[in-house]
Amino acid sequence: MPRATCAAFAPGESIDVNGAHSLVRTLLASGVDTCFANPGTSEMHFVAALDQIPGMRCVLGLQENVVTGMADGYWRLAGKPACTLLHCGPGLANGLGNLHNARRARSGIVNIVGDHATYHRAFDAPLTADTEGWARPVSAWVRTSARAADVGRDAAVAVQAARTAPGGIATLILPSDSSWDEGGEEAAPLPVPGPVAPDPGAVRQAARVLREGKRVLILLGGAALRERGQALAWRIAQATGASLLAEGSNARMTRGRGLPQLDRVPYVVNVAVERLSGFDHIVLVNAKAPVGFFAYPGKPSALYPPEAGVHVLSRFEGDAEAALAALADELGAPEAAIPDPGPRPEPARGAPTPEGLARTVAALMPEGAIVSDESVSYGRGFFPETYAAPRHDWLQLTGGAIGDGMPVATGAAIGSGGNRRVISLQADGSAMYSLQSLWTQAREKLPVTTVILSNRKYQILIGEYAGVGANPGPTAMNMLDLGNPDLDWVRLAGGMGVEAARAETLEALGDLLSQSMARPGPFLIELSV
Amino acid sequence: MPRATCAAFAPGESIDVNGAHSLVRTLLASGVDTCFANPGTSEMHFVAALDQIPGMRCVLGLQENVVTGMADGYWRLAGKPACTLLHCGPGLANGLGNLHNARRARSGIVNIVGDHATYHRAFDAPLTADTEGWARPVSAWVRTSARAADVGRDAAVAVQAARTAPGGIATLILPSDSSWDEGGEEAAPLPVPGPVAPDPGAVRQAARVLREGKRVLILLGGAALRERGQALAWRIAQATGASLLAEGSNARMTRGRGLPQLDRVPYVVNVAVERLSGFDHIVLVNAKAPVGFFAYPGKPSALYPPEAGVHVLSRFEGDAEAALAALADELGAPEAAIPDPGPRPEPARGAPTPEGLARTVAALMPEGAIVSDESVSYGRGFFPETYAAPRHDWLQLTGGAIGDGMPVATGAAIGSGGNRRVISLQADGSAMYSLQSLWTQAREKLPVTTVILSNRKYQILIGEYAGVGANPGPTAMNMLDLGNPDLDWVRLAGGMGVEAARAETLEALGDLLSQSMARPGPFLIELSV
Repeated sequence: MPRATCAAFAPGESIDVNGAHSLVRTLLASGVDTCFANPGTSEMHFVAALDQIPGMRCVLGLQENVVTGMADGYWRLAGKPACTLLHCGPGLANGLGNLHNARRARSGIVNIVGDHATYHRAFDAPLTADTEGWARPVSAWVRTSARAADVGRDAAVAVQAARTAPGGIATLILPSDSSWDEGGEEAAPLPVPGPVAPDPGAVRQAARVLREGKRVLILLGGAALRERGQALAWRIAQATGASLLAEGSNARMTRGRGLPQLDRVPYVVNVAVERLSGFDHIVLVNAKAPVGFFAYPGKPSALYPPEAGVHVLSRFEGDAEAALAALADELGAPEAAIPDPGPRPEPARGAPTPEGLARTVAALMPEGAIVSDESVSYGRGFFPETYAAPRHDWLQLTGGAIGDGMPVATGAAIGSGGNRRVISLQADGSAMYSLQSLWTQAREKLPVTTVILSNRKYQILIGEYAGVGANPGPTAMNMLDLGNPDLDWVRLAGGMGVEAARAETLEALGDLLSQSMARPGPFLIELSV
Repeated sequence: MPRATCAAFAPGESIDVNGAHSLVRTLLASGVDTCFANPGTSEMHFVAALDQIPGMRCVLGLQENVVTGMADGYWRLAGKPACTLLHCGPGLANGLGNLHNARRARSGIVNIVGDHATYHRAFDAPLTADTEGWARPVSAWVRTSARAADVGRDAAVAVQAARTAPGGIATLILPSDSSWDEGGEEAAPLPVPGPVAPDPGAVRQAARVLREGKRVLILLGGAALRERGQALAWRIAQATGASLLAEGSNARMTRGRGLPQLDRVPYVVNVAVERLSGFDHIVLVNAKAPVGFFAYPGKPSALYPPEAGVHVLSRFEGDAEAALAALADELGAPEAAIPDPGPRPEPARGAPTPEGLARTVAALMPEGAIVSDESVSYGRGFFPETYAAPRHDWLQLTGGAIGDGMPVATGAAIGSGGNRRVISLQADGSAMYSLQSLWTQAREKLPVTTVILSNRKYQILIGEYAGVGANPGPTAMNMLDLGNPDLDWVRLAGGMGVEAARAETLEALGDLLSQSMARPGPFLIELSV
C-alpha cells in the first residue's frame, strides 16, 4: 500500500494516512467544515482524525435526532452541507425522523455512519443492524466504503450527491477497518452540477396559460422562495392577474418588508379546497401540486380542483429564479413595486393569542432574524401578522415528523454564522421530542430565543379527534393530554444550562423577548397558551 | 359488507364495527391489554376505538423510543406482549433504537403503526415514508393491512408472531382507511407454539463433552437465566466440574440469595479472551458463542479459543429448563445445594465507587426488586457485589443502542404489576437519550428509583479513544465531554414531575435510596461519580 503522508498535520508531524484521515481531508477539501456528531466506539479513529487535522468544527448533540436536525437547519442557512457523525445502524435510526424532514426540505447532508469492521459483521455482535436498509428511504445516495483506499473517493462522491440541486442526503457508511487501515487517499472535490436551466417549452406553456385570462395560481416552493424569486413572481402576477401562494410547509422562505405578502396553502383540507377552488390552472415553480397532509373519509387527497390544469414551470432541481425571469421576459411583464405592508406592528397585550404572539414577534424581532416555526396547530395564522416585520427567514417543519423545530433552530444559528438571532416558535408536545437541543445551544452559546407554546396537550390531535366523532373519553385523553404532571420548561431548560422564564401575558412575552435579544446566548420563554 | 355490531360497547350502544374496532377487540381477545402509545392524526380512529371498547391500559410516552423501550421492559417482566401505537414511518423510525434492543433481548412486541390511507400514499404527502422498509430489520413479522376486513385476522397473526418463542417483534401497519372503514371482523386468538423441546442428540452430545474431563464452559442466556435454569446448571456444574457464565448482556436474569454466583462474559476484549482462554469446549444454552462487542485492530472477533468445541444444547427458541433438566438426568447429576453468598452487604460509605454503589444497592433493595442496568462502563463490576442481595431480577441493555435503561425500567414497572420496586442504574450520557421516560413514570406513579451516574462525559468513549492512540485533544473532547454546561438532573427530573435530589457520597445515596423506597412513586438521585 502507498504510504502517503498527511500534510495537514501539525508541522513536523508526519504519519501514515488511514481511511479516517482521508475522509476528514476529503470533506474539508470539498467544503464540508462542520460536523454534527454523536460518536461511538466504532468512530474513534474518525474522531482521532478530526483531532489531528485542523479545520472541522465539531458540534455535539446528545441524541441523534438533534444531530440530524441541526444538519438540516445548517444547510437551510449555509446553503452547503455539513456532515453528521452517527454510531452504527441504531445511531442512524435515532436520527431518521429528522432526516425524513430534511429529505422533504431537500436539504443536503453528508451522513457519516460508523459501523462494525467489515470482517466483524458476520459475528452479529449486539449493534449489528441493517444500516444500509435504514438509510435508503431517506437517502439520495448510500454507499459502504469497503476498504480504506475507497474512503476518500466515496466521500467526494457523497459531497457531490449532497450538493447536487436541490440538495440531497448522502449516507456514507464507514466500517471501522476502512477507517483505521492505512492506505487512505484524499480525493479532490468533484464538480457539482448547478440547478437545471429553464425549459423553454415549459416557460412558453406557462406564459400561454397566464395570457388566457383564466384564474391562475402560481405556486412557489423551494428555491423560488428567496427574495429574487418572490419579486419575479410578484412582477408576473401583477402583469397577468395571477395569484401567488407558497407551499404549505417550506424549508426557508424570506419574508418581511420589501417582499410580497405571500400566504401559504392552508393545512386544513376544507379550508385549502375552498381557497384553491376557483383556479383553472396551477403553475408550479419548484413546488408540488398541493395534497392533503392526511386523508380523511369523504375528503379529497388533492386539494386543487380535479379539472384544473397543472403546469410545471420548474422542477425541484430547476433554477427557479432563472425560470421566473424567463417567464417574466416571455410575458413582457414590467417591473412592479411591491406594496408597503403598512406600519410595523406594535407588541400585543393581554392574554396570549396566535395573532398577538405573531404581532409581538413581528414588533420585536431584529433585522435579519431567523424564525424556526414548529408551532403546529397554534401557528396557522402567523403569516398575515408578520408581513410588516423586518426582513427575516422563516423555516418550517417540512416532513411532518415532529421534533425538528429546536434542532433546526440550533443548526440554523450555526449555519448563519452565529450573528443572526434565531426565534424558535415551538409547540410543547413537539419540543419534548428533541429537547436535548437546548444543551447544544448552551454549549455553543448560540443566539437562539425559544418560545415554548405551552398548552399542555397535543392540541392538533384533540382537533383531529373531534373530526372522528364525539369528544375524547378518558382513555383517549390519556393519550392526547400532556398535563398530569405539567411539564416545567423553565426547569427543563435550566437543567441543560439555558436560562429561562415563564410568561402568562403578551406583555411579559414582549419583555422577555426583548431581553433575550440583548444577550449573546440562548434563552427560553415558556408561554402559557 | 357484513355489519357486525360490537358487543363490548357500553350497554345500549351498538355501532358498526370498523377496522379499528376489530383491532382493539382482537388484541384484547389475544391477551394484549397494555398499549404504549404516541399517536398521531392517522391513528385517531384507533384511539377512538380504544376509548369505546374497555380493557386496554394506554400509557403515553412523549417520544417513540420511550414507547418502544417501555414495551420491551413490559415483556421482560410480564412475559406477554404489549402493543405500541406509533405514528407513520417517522414515528416508527423514532422508536427503532429500542426496537433494535428489544430484538436483541428477544422480546415480544406488537407494533401498531398507523399510516396514510391506502389511496393517499400515491400523493406523497409529507409524512409518506417507507414504513415497511424501516420496520423489516427489527421485525420477525411485518404486514400492512390492506382493508378493514383483514385487520382482525392480521392482528391475531401479529400477536401469534410476537408470542412465538423466544419472542419477536411483529409490526402491523394500519392504513387509516383500513382503520376507519366498516367491515372489521374480530379474529379469535391463534395458538402459540411453546418453546421447542430438547433435542435428545444435543443432550447426549453435551453430556459426552461434559464427561470427558476437559475444561467445559456452560454459557447461559435468555430463558436459561431464571431460577430453575440456573439451579439445574449449577447441579450439572457441580457434577462435572464445568464452569458457568451468563452472556455479556442479558434481557432478564434472576439473581441474589439462593441463586448461583453467576458472572457474565466480560465486555473488554482482552479480559474476555483471558477469561475464556482455558476452555476446551463451550456448551451453549439459549446463548450465542461470545463475540466482541466491537472489533479492534489486531484483536479477535470471537472471544473464545479458536480450537474450542462449540456445542448447542438449546437454541434461542428452545425450552432451556427442559434441556438442562434432560442434561442433568443424562449425567445422573445429583441435587446440589447452592452455596450461601455470605452476609448481605452493609451500605458503603465515602466517595462513590462502582463497588460501593453496588454494595449499597444490595444492602437496601427490597425483596423482589427489579434492577434496570444501563450503567455502561461504570457498572462492569456490579455483579460480584450483589450476589448476597435479596432475590431480584436484573435487566440489561441487550443491543448496545444506548437509551433503553429508563424506558425499560418504566415498562418493567408496569409489566410487573406495579408492586415491585425498580432501581434504574443509569449512565448520564445514555439517560439523555430518553429522559422523557421520567414524565411517564410520574404520570403513572410508578415505583421507580433512578440513580443517574453523573460523570459528565461519555466515559466509555474516552476509554476507547485511549485505545486508538494519544489523549483526546480539544476537538475530540468536544465530542466526548458532557460538561460545559453541566446537566442538572434534579432540575430535569423536576421539570417532568419527578422529585429528585443529588448525592455526593455513598451515605447520602443510601439515605435517598431508602427514602425513595418508602414512597409509592418515582424518585431520581443524581450521584456524582
